[in-house]
Amino acid sequence: MTVIPESHRDILEKKGFAHVATIGPGGEPQSHPVWYGWDGEALLISATPAKQRIQNLRRFPRIAVSIQDPDDPYRYLEIRGPVEIEPDPRHAFIDSLAKKYSGVGRYEYDPPGTERLIVRIIPEHTTSQ
Amino acid sequence: MTVIPESHRDILEKKGFAHVATIGPGGEPQSHPVWYGWDGEALLISATPAKQRIQNLRRFPRIAVSIQDPDDPYRYLEIRGPVEIEPDPRHAFIDSLAKKYSGVGRYEYDPPGTERLIVRIIPEHTTSQ
Repeated sequence: MTVIPESHRDILEKKGFAHVATIGPGGEPQSHPVWYGWDGEALLISATPAKQRIQNLRRFPRIAVSIQDPDDPYRYLEIRGPVEIEPDPRHAFIDSLAKKYSGVGRYEYDPPGTERLIVRIIPEHTTSQ
Repeated sequence: MTVIPESHRDILEKKGFAHVATIGPGGEPQSHPVWYGWDGEALLISATPAKQRIQNLRRFPRIAVSIQDPDDPYRYLEIRGPVEIEPDPRHAFIDSLAKKYSGVGRYEYDPPGTERLIVRIIPEHTTSQ
């Protein structure tokens, strides 16, 4: 169903950080760490529409993310593939990430009225170690 | 001298991991974590010539790396810029990384005769949190 190697699937359930690589307006790579979720088929990250990574992905909808095992930094999983950007209208997804990472089931750092998006990363190729 | 914000310079001396974003042969981003060093002006990473990241950088010599503070994953520094690729003829640089990360002053995982390169990343733009 997916290309995730069995040996590294555990990382997808852990509280690691996904370093997301996107391509900026000048064609240059950009990278930064974010929370992630895994729904069994796609890696999911959250963003607001104004974020540079969303602008980058609307222009060039391919991404790579590398995630180290938080329990052993010498293990990592990289996922590359196309992305789909969807709304997160009731913030259910960002709230689920807050629950996963902080234990609090509501993400409280967005000003009122903030729009949230879900970036679905479809695994097409992986590398791992 | 550099664009590294004073508030995040400490990360450059720590034993973190640099997630390096390069651009692959199909124009797609690629990402993976590596050791790094800092010489006061440039971020340095090591690689063998056969590595995909070296082939990527010879084609398109710009990079982004994001590094989380190993003591606080919610702090990070991203460095973007052009790269210069130099030889590491006596392996002094890879050995210095082995010393920094493992305490052992010699990197022992290369087969005899392995060629090592140094990728110098010139900070041109940073983001941090």
